[in-house]
Amino acid sequence: MTDGDFGLLTPVSAAPAVAALTGDRAVIAAILDVEAAWAAVLEEAGLAPASSAAVAAEAAGAGLYDPESIAERAQGGGNPVIPLLGDLRARVKALDTAGIGAGKAVHTSLTSQDVLDSALMLLASRVVEALLAEVKGTTTALAALAVQHADTLCVGRSLTQHSLPFTFGLKAAQWFHGVAAGAARLESLGLPVQFGGAGGTLASGTVLTAGSSSNPFTLADALAAKLGLAPAPAPWHTNRLAVTALGDAIAALTDAFGKIASDLLFLSRPEVGELGEPLAAGRGVSSAMPQKQNPVLSVLIRSAALQAPGLAAQLHLAAATFNDERPDGAWHSEWPALRRLLALALGAAGHLRELTEGLRVFPEAMRRNLEISGPLLLSEAVVSAVAPLLGSDGKQKLQAVVDETLQAPAAEQSRIYAKLLRETVPADMLSDAELEALLDPVSYLGEAAEISRRIFAAYPDFTATTPRKGAPRG
Amino acid sequence: MTDGDFGLLTPVSAAPAVAALTGDRAVIAAILDVEAAWAAVLEEAGLAPASSAAVAAEAAGAGLYDPESIAERAQGGGNPVIPLLGDLRARVKALDTAGIGAGKAVHTSLTSQDVLDSALMLLASRVVEALLAEVKGTTTALAALAVQHADTLCVGRSLTQHSLPFTFGLKAAQWFHGVAAGAARLESLGLPVQFGGAGGTLASGTVLTAGSSSNPFTLADALAAKLGLAPAPAPWHTNRLAVTALGDAIAALTDAFGKIASDLLFLSRPEVGELGEPLAAGRGVSSAMPQKQNPVLSVLIRSAALQAPGLAAQLHLAAATFNDERPDGAWHSEWPALRRLLALALGAAGHLRELTEGLRVFPEAMRRNLEISGPLLLSEAVVSAVAPLLGSDGKQKLQAVVDETLQAPAAEQSRIYAKLLRETVPADMLSDAELEALLDPVSYLGEAAEISRRIFAAYPDFTATTPRKGAPRG
Amino acid sequence: MTDGDFGLLTPVSAAPAVAALTGDRAVIAAILDVEAAWAAVLEEAGLAPASSAAVAAEAAGAGLYDPESIAERAQGGGNPVIPLLGDLRARVKALDTAGIGAGKAVHTSLTSQDVLDSALMLLASRVVEALLAEVKGTTTALAALAVQHADTLCVGRSLTQHSLPFTFGLKAAQWFHGVAAGAARLESLGLPVQFGGAGGTLASGTVLTAGSSSNPFTLADALAAKLGLAPAPAPWHTNRLAVTALGDAIAALTDAFGKIASDLLFLSRPEVGELGEPLAAGRGVSSAMPQKQNPVLSVLIRSAALQAPGLAAQLHLAAATFNDERPDGAWHSEWPALRRLLALALGAAGHLRELTEGLRVFPEAMRRNLEISGPLLLSEAVVSAVAPLLGSDGKQKLQAVVDETLQAPAAEQSRIYAKLLRETVPADMLSDAELEALLDPVSYLGEAAEISRRIFAAYPDFTATTPRKGAPRG
Amino acid sequence: MTDGDFGLLTPVSAAPAVAALTGDRAVIAAILDVEAAWAAVLEEAGLAPASSAAVAAEAAGAGLYDPESIAERAQGGGNPVIPLLGDLRARVKALDTAGIGAGKAVHTSLTSQDVLDSALMLLASRVVEALLAEVKGTTTALAALAVQHADTLCVGRSLTQHSLPFTFGLKAAQWFHGVAAGAARLESLGLPVQFGGAGGTLASGTVLTAGSSSNPFTLADALAAKLGLAPAPAPWHTNRLAVTALGDAIAALTDAFGKIASDLLFLSRPEVGELGEPLAAGRGVSSAMPQKQNPVLSVLIRSAALQAPGLAAQLHLAAATFNDERPDGAWHSEWPALRRLLALALGAAGHLRELTEGLRVFPEAMRRNLEISGPLLLSEAVVSAVAPLLGSDGKQKLQAVVDETLQAPAAEQSRIYAKLLRETVPADMLSDAELEALLDPVSYLGEAAEISRRIFAAYPDFTATTPRKGAPRG
Repeated sequence: MTDGDFGLLTPVSAAPAVAALTGDRAVIAAILDVEAAWAAVLEEAGLAPASSAAVAAEAAGAGLYDPESIAERAQGGGNPVIPLLGDLRARVKALDTAGIGAGKAVHTSLTSQDVLDSALMLLASRVVEALLAEVKGTTTALAALAVQHADTLCVGRSLTQHSLPFTFGLKAAQWFHGVAAGAARLESLGLPVQFGGAGGTLASGTVLTAGSSSNPFTLADALAAKLGLAPAPAPWHTNRLAVTALGDAIAALTDAFGKIASDLLFLSRPEVGELGEPLAAGRGVSSAMPQKQNPVLSVLIRSAALQAPGLAAQLHLAAATFNDERPDGAWHSEWPALRRLLALALGAAGHLRELTEGLRVFPEAMRRNLEISGPLLLSEAVVSAVAPLLGSDGKQKLQAVVDETLQAPAAEQSRIYAKLLRETVPADMLSDAELEALLDPVSYLGEAAEISRRIFAAYPDFTATTPRKGAPRG
Repeated sequence: MTDGDFGLLTPVSAAPAVAALTGDRAVIAAILDVEAAWAAVLEEAGLAPASSAAVAAEAAGAGLYDPESIAERAQGGGNPVIPLLGDLRARVKALDTAGIGAGKAVHTSLTSQDVLDSALMLLASRVVEALLAEVKGTTTALAALAVQHADTLCVGRSLTQHSLPFTFGLKAAQWFHGVAAGAARLESLGLPVQFGGAGGTLASGTVLTAGSSSNPFTLADALAAKLGLAPAPAPWHTNRLAVTALGDAIAALTDAFGKIASDLLFLSRPEVGELGEPLAAGRGVSSAMPQKQNPVLSVLIRSAALQAPGLAAQLHLAAATFNDERPDGAWHSEWPALRRLLALALGAAGHLRELTEGLRVFPEAMRRNLEISGPLLLSEAVVSAVAPLLGSDGKQKLQAVVDETLQAPAAEQSRIYAKLLRETVPADMLSDAELEALLDPVSYLGEAAEISRRIFAAYPDFTATTPRKGAPRG
Repeated sequence: MTDGDFGLLTPVSAAPAVAALTGDRAVIAAILDVEAAWAAVLEEAGLAPASSAAVAAEAAGAGLYDPESIAERAQGGGNPVIPLLGDLRARVKALDTAGIGAGKAVHTSLTSQDVLDSALMLLASRVVEALLAEVKGTTTALAALAVQHADTLCVGRSLTQHSLPFTFGLKAAQWFHGVAAGAARLESLGLPVQFGGAGGTLASGTVLTAGSSSNPFTLADALAAKLGLAPAPAPWHTNRLAVTALGDAIAALTDAFGKIASDLLFLSRPEVGELGEPLAAGRGVSSAMPQKQNPVLSVLIRSAALQAPGLAAQLHLAAATFNDERPDGAWHSEWPALRRLLALALGAAGHLRELTEGLRVFPEAMRRNLEISGPLLLSEAVVSAVAPLLGSDGKQKLQAVVDETLQAPAAEQSRIYAKLLRETVPADMLSDAELEALLDPVSYLGEAAEISRRIFAAYPDFTATTPRKGAPRG
Repeated sequence: MTDGDFGLLTPVSAAPAVAALTGDRAVIAAILDVEAAWAAVLEEAGLAPASSAAVAAEAAGAGLYDPESIAERAQGGGNPVIPLLGDLRARVKALDTAGIGAGKAVHTSLTSQDVLDSALMLLASRVVEALLAEVKGTTTALAALAVQHADTLCVGRSLTQHSLPFTFGLKAAQWFHGVAAGAARLESLGLPVQFGGAGGTLASGTVLTAGSSSNPFTLADALAAKLGLAPAPAPWHTNRLAVTALGDAIAALTDAFGKIASDLLFLSRPEVGELGEPLAAGRGVSSAMPQKQNPVLSVLIRSAALQAPGLAAQLHLAAATFNDERPDGAWHSEWPALRRLLALALGAAGHLRELTEGLRVFPEAMRRNLEISGPLLLSEAVVSAVAPLLGSDGKQKLQAVVDETLQAPAAEQSRIYAKLLRETVPADMLSDAELEALLDPVSYLGEAAEISRRIFAAYPDFTATTPRKGAPRG
């Protein structure tokens, strides 16, 4: 019986696919992958016995190690590499029945931080790959919605109130905008390998490579290449920009997710009814109320978006207090924050993909809500078109019309506004037909379509579907 | 093979005893305990069939349920109560071979939030109990150090520089002060039961109790009594002061832990050497450097202290955005923050107890460091005692002595300061013996002993050892 | 021409009354008040020349000092006490025309931290007094709304969806609950004086009082009494619970404000229309849209609630890294966070008072929104009342009714649900009249009234108006 | 008499030069600059009367407007643009004595958010320019230190303990690394103009440009060009990546500052003495202790570094809750966080430049501290070189030597380690001379010099001095 955290209290990231990429076993796998890749680098450079990399690789199966035991023993040295390395060495020794000295390929010239920093970057690169696949599903869905609803009229809202006529297509395009911009930034990040040795001077590596055709920098580059990580010009033991930039980019992405969830949670309320989450058996149920259909995907996405900023800040706080050549607690506070950020983002991305791919759109409700404000929504347009016709105090006259209108009960404001306006503007300056046209919301959509077009043009990689793999929701 | 978080990346809280109280299984146990207690409340009130509580209790063994499966299914409704309740009901039904209708005792008139809020308070109360036991071990150890070292001279430091003579006893007393004050606040908190029903009106409970001698408030009080929680005057579904106050109190305690760790990390540096962590086999080791003896207990404690403020803030953020009668993501962002805060604090408390109980103190090093500044440390005392003897510009004359002293190499400043002072103050005003006494650091300890005494007097419950139980470190 | 921050970018706290209590001039006044009170303490204890306190008091007028200049010079020593003290001493000297040695009453035996910690507590106590006055205006208004609308039917909402029938009275009572609980906690806090001397040992104070009938502790108590602060059993230089507890309590209060603002921002949307902010000339206007009436009070309150958690966390972070006998940056990071927290809370409290005192309530809209869900809102009640009549699979039958209902267009669900229900339950078990009664939302309000009553009973001090003074909004 | 915040409680940013770039007057100037530039854009496009831009420019002098009054009135609409615009329009009208209709050039087709977003980006661009100038002073100084001390031996430290031999040159190079990487990222950011109109559709701009050779996008690009901002492909009203990316980059820079300050605060302690801040009259003084020379530059820098992460998180939180087409509080919570972040970073950068340009380096102290650990520092090297000579259990034998050594008093460990080592390794395998060479720290510096070289090569723009302008410290 094991005691652990399987996501019971973070349902947003409780999908098995998320756990597979971010759980302790994934961390162990990443650590072992770094050690095994290093063994291969050493052997290829002639710095470890022939065939030792194969032994290391055989010993480096994540399933062979017990996360709970390693976690408990990690308390001794303060990091999980130390006990895992002990177990790995024992296994390598046991497997080295031929006595080739395979142990010499393990961890030689490395320090815990080299391994853990590299392993977390490796783990991150795997999560980022899965995350970007989900995100591209989302952006593709949003782009399709934007095209489909380019002419679907709705109302724009600012500070909760109706502002101007809008289209649902532009709303979807702006959602796309946020997600694609965040994802593009994340995609452009280089996640670097770490190699500095015990003190950050590469001293042991220098001794190791003395007289060989390699040097510590060529070894580091070879390790990066094997792991699919970016090479680093120098050790970054104490300069954590690689970590904070990753955290910042993840948070920027969950910000964009959160913006969509906030909108959706409002737009799917019974009083609004413009959108609906995709329906699925067992989703959105309540333990007490049979009729409830909660927008649970959005709720979970929002819960992630509310948590990410604090986690990204935790990474900066670590970076800002990273004293000495390896710090006395700041480094240790970085690991869980980074892992949780990755898990939250990946979990939320899966839910968002499902949400956007199956989003239910109700154009009639959009139209109905637009008509609550009716021609008042055009009052900016009216000022612009009509004020000049009314002389130097045209704006004041039109504001007076609006003010008088707002005295009336909401349900009558549309009619009254049109009537007062008609009375204020002489018909020879503006015919009834012209006034009607002016008050038609379709006439005042500005560049909604062109803005959408420009947004998609700016992120061409995000409008085509990629095949779904590693989806976090089963 | 399970994918979960066993603390691999949070070694500070990776002790089995912490996992046992804060892992997913502990959450499940707390939820089941709430449901079972509720069944007993209902049966005792005559609102559920006789013997149904026993069936519910039998079904409510945490070991019978699978955390991973429940976590995964919690995505559907957005909280873990819903799938767990499904499993519980099935088991109750299966156990109810006599057909007494035991299912009627399960969850009747409750809603998920009643159960989860109460369960997290229950879990918290268990963690707090273990935490306070650890803390009392720590405060007892600190009080003993304070007594033992009441006369152990050291140097006070402010903004990193030497300020005045100090005693290690007072330092230990002030550490005690922070921990005891934080713990006393935590101990005084009431952790309330939650019962509001599906909408927060107790509507179902009102129907249920109609015609009985009970009412929803008496049921809630009975539930609180069974669980050892505080009664609540009214549902607190949407007012989260109980949660934030708990988080704040935990953070105040880890603040006090962090302050001690910060001090210890400096005082145990090789250049300082005033303190040492207790030695233990395998602790403080490095993967690369055989000679390293890292102060790993302090490092881990500090890593927790750096994380707690952000987690407490997460709880406030949830409270500040807790919209409607149950919110759309804020509530969900509360759970993991609360659980992690509890786990970090409990883990850190265990390490701190071990640290303080075995702290190695090196009075000679304290004395040696004090003497780096030597008589300069008494310059405030000198101004106070001597300036009046030197006329109206006495302070300026003495500042000039200090300023000239500071021009000299550090190693000679003590000697030079004493010499310049002798030259500045006529011997007939201050004899050599008087000057020597003035420059003796022991003469300028102020109320160090009395301050310590007052601190202990303010927290009498924290100076006596309590038997250790549930210690987080194996 | 001065360069400063007058609240241009924090409109929530830009009221002159807030600036008067939290601006730099208020800080200077608090520092000077501490120094002047200390002079009086010393003179009264016979430790400073007769009449010196009067000179110090005369010199301690905040208007005599230039905040910009002091702020700039504060860079030298890292805190504002040092340059202000220089200016104060010069002024005391100049005023001491009689040559009584009034300077001896200024800052003797104090250190910067004594003065700044005490001054910030003094400033906080003034802000808290004004804040509680605003809050009591708010709670009084909310209590009145709760009474007035005890029977005003509305809909409860959870996870954005309709849950059960509710009353606006209970909603107002729960808003009251949050605010009153937060305010009661704030009101109960003791804000302590600080006196520890340069090193935290009271060494200078011990020398000063030697041979007198005073001692450093009696002086500290006298200072506390003069300033209206709480006495402290011991210096708390390095244990910041007094600061974090204040910050936590302020944040708990802004949490409660934020919860109300979140609700109001939804409930005053055009699509919902249940509530409206009080109207006032020039409020809620837009720079572009003549028709806009933004709920700007709620917007500003929410902006404060979103900021407070981070500021409270900043205080904890400082406390957690408060190394040595005075720390190397943590203390300095505390001051601006505390001040901003106080300013945000006071500003928000003024807006909330205005909001609640003038809140516009639209019961018809509440009813209209309730009817969107209609009898479906009673489905929990139906299950409870009807399922037992339908045999062992009663719940499933009723869930099937709900599920079939939810297939219909929203506008028809009420009718269909009633119809299907009628068909499912034999009329001899439940007559038409009984069914109608069961589906009447008024019948299912549970303990709404009693919950409200209990809440008010728990906070009797918060239901009566106090005269308004120091209101932050002009 | 004005009530404002002049930096009294944030000494790190209390320099007049910081206030000039970040105070309310600077905000007003930026808003007015945006409005004036827009007038010019409109006139140049033939969309405003000839000569109207000149009138607008004349009216747009920041000194003509009263920050306190505008701040107070900003409460009405919730943002400062609205009252400032009112004042500006009145002034334009008054200046338009020729009656050319200059008012038509003011704010036409803009909305408050266009102006405020653009103005804050403009203000940010000015701060960033000044900040980068300071930073390049710092990096130049650090590069010079790295060159000068390329061979200055010191000790590397990890988890507070001695790790390996190190050079101060590499330490300075790694400090450079962090600052230069952060600054390069900041320098590469585009700070975009905002233009979306009242609803984000550019509707008013579309009407305005109808029939002209312009369109809203060409106007936006022209505005960007005039203000020196980046053009934006589309409005970013609701997608705040531009804001969060700026905040993240600033925080990454203050992280690097904080890392240096943390190191310096330790290295300049009396017990360590490896570094000293530059001395300056009046700096580092205490209000009570004449002998204190506090490292106040580092303290202030650290205070900024501790605050920046929370402020950057505040920006993400706003972005994550940016609902609708303009949000209901999130936007308002963004402004103060962004401004404070800019002010803290600029203030800290000025202090850091002064610190690094005048840093005092004490190589003898570095050597003395290195010798505390002496040959034990080489134990990794010894294992690597000697273990193979000792057979298959060579590592264990050498660990036993270390363990026995660590039993001895610290002062004797060097001698004992060398002696035990000599006894363990046969002289025919390792001569005395070879052993001595092995234990020489200079022999084990690895790639310290090459790492430094690579770091400088990666940031060529940061090693040459730029002329100092706009320095924040007077």
